[in-house]
Amino acid sequence: MTTEPPLLLALDFTGTFAFALNGALTAVRAARLDIVGVVALGMITALGGGILRDVLIDSVPPAAFRDWRYLALALGGGLVAFALSQWLDRLEMPINVLDAIGLSTFAVIGASKALGAGLGIGPAIILGAITGVGGGTIRDTLIRRIPSVLQSDLYAIPALLGAAVTVGTIHAGVHGLPAALVAVATCFTVRMLGVHFGLQAPSPPGGRH
Amino acid sequence: MTTEPPLLLALDFTGTFAFALNGALTAVRAARLDIVGVVALGMITALGGGILRDVLIDSVPPAAFRDWRYLALALGGGLVAFALSQWLDRLEMPINVLDAIGLSTFAVIGASKALGAGLGIGPAIILGAITGVGGGTIRDTLIRRIPSVLQSDLYAIPALLGAAVTVGTIHAGVHGLPAALVAVATCFTVRMLGVHFGLQAPSPPGGRH
Amino acid sequence: MTTEPPLLLALDFTGTFAFALNGALTAVRAARLDIVGVVALGMITALGGGILRDVLIDSVPPAAFRDWRYLALALGGGLVAFALSQWLDRLEMPINVLDAIGLSTFAVIGASKALGAGLGIGPAIILGAITGVGGGTIRDTLIRRIPSVLQSDLYAIPALLGAAVTVGTIHAGVHGLPAALVAVATCFTVRMLGVHFGLQAPSPPGGRH
Repeated sequence: MTTEPPLLLALDFTGTFAFALNGALTAVRAARLDIVGVVALGMITALGGGILRDVLIDSVPPAAFRDWRYLALALGGGLVAFALSQWLDRLEMPINVLDAIGLSTFAVIGASKALGAGLGIGPAIILGAITGVGGGTIRDTLIRRIPSVLQSDLYAIPALLGAAVTVGTIHAGVHGLPAALVAVATCFTVRMLGVHFGLQAPSPPGGRH
Repeated sequence: MTTEPPLLLALDFTGTFAFALNGALTAVRAARLDIVGVVALGMITALGGGILRDVLIDSVPPAAFRDWRYLALALGGGLVAFALSQWLDRLEMPINVLDAIGLSTFAVIGASKALGAGLGIGPAIILGAITGVGGGTIRDTLIRRIPSVLQSDLYAIPALLGAAVTVGTIHAGVHGLPAALVAVATCFTVRMLGVHFGLQAPSPPGGRH
Repeated sequence: MTTEPPLLLALDFTGTFAFALNGALTAVRAARLDIVGVVALGMITALGGGILRDVLIDSVPPAAFRDWRYLALALGGGLVAFALSQWLDRLEMPINVLDAIGLSTFAVIGASKALGAGLGIGPAIILGAITGVGGGTIRDTLIRRIPSVLQSDLYAIPALLGAAVTVGTIHAGVHGLPAALVAVATCFTVRMLGVHFGLQAPSPPGGRH
């Protein structure tokens, strides 16, 4: 069981469910899958980033296997997506909002756990971002898509920002829930601005594509 | 070296060789590879699931690197497949049977090792299935196929069943070889029924494909 | 921080930068990516093999996260490739030479670290090769290419040779820089001969392609 403050834990649970839902829906749309595939890809989307982080900071077995609530929420999100995929396709914006909550919370908790494991500033920021984007990256690779985080939208950049604010506040001696919520809000705001205005990260110069 | 009973160890070795053979043959059929690619993909198919499991239960270096016999069998299976791929293509049914032995043994041993590492029921069942299907999933991803376990056939479901029977019997206090063999037989039977009758897991509702 | 001799450390740093540069250039050529994608794939190419090795020999957090210089060099290589990709495309041969230095150094250091972690001859050779080719393999998978190491060129074979010479000399009681440099030179020479003469590893018999 984790020792996060209740509000952060609630956000973490929300994010886990939302990632599983959204991950499974993406899988249903992109590939011909059976129930095992849909649910497995939902769970991988929800839990993969945190598992990668835990393996890399030597916190194994990963939290996803130690606290049954993460596994249950991920399984639930995948099953709901399998059963209701046609209906959920109409709910793009609410799902985007939930997904952004997941991205923000995962990045902040990931960076904080990496610092707690004794890692430096740079690795902690990277591990925060990996916690946020790792699950979707594994999912995209498994369904043979170039991970969307590598090619479009502001997705990795808000995660890096949220992780950087986390690392900055903790290094400034500001611990606890308020600092974490500022970091979550930073990532969430930048991500939603990106969705709303269709912002893109810069592409390589020269118009080679 | 492992401490499994001789019969279970024999099945484990058989499965390792069969997975390497079948994995390398799949790679030869699906992609233009050289000898390094064929043998590497055979070895990854045979050893990848167990390595994933060992990393996730913190049993590192993985068994595949501690007991030379696994490495030797996987290398041998890959080399045999490279040399005899044309001839082996005619032996689909015997290879399917050997592959089902591997799937069953890997799922049962994987679930049992996960329980032994202190994991709960849900994670142990999932880790059993990962042990069985993880290697083939990595192989398919490397040769740019959507992993067949995600989209067709009964493959993950028998592995989950075998792992669940393992976890159930151990939790009921029934240890040892007979319980393991019942679990192996469960997975093997369901897998072979699936092959024989062409059974499929359910797809998402709505005929969207 | 690492304790390698200065010359080997210099080669290791050169290889890290060259892998990031080359990895990011490959990514720019092969897929439509933004700056995050290009830099991330460069860093994954440079650091992925060593991270895989460290996870598998239980040396976690990986060296790439403990010594900031690796992260800085990988980030720098990725950024340079992003900014100068058009100009760098003309420098194929110098980049091939730098890349071969990276392959050689990574294979030798990887095999040596695996032996130091108590692994046997076979696993140490494999882990040396994984250190050399692992990062590029992850990159290729993420941009949906069949990893080039599996299908063409002499790339894995020189890495296996360099790792084998390392393991052989250490087992013969020859430690230290001279032995490491002989191993590096072996891998480098075979790799450059392969590039120069367009050598290929054998393909499966029967002309099935």
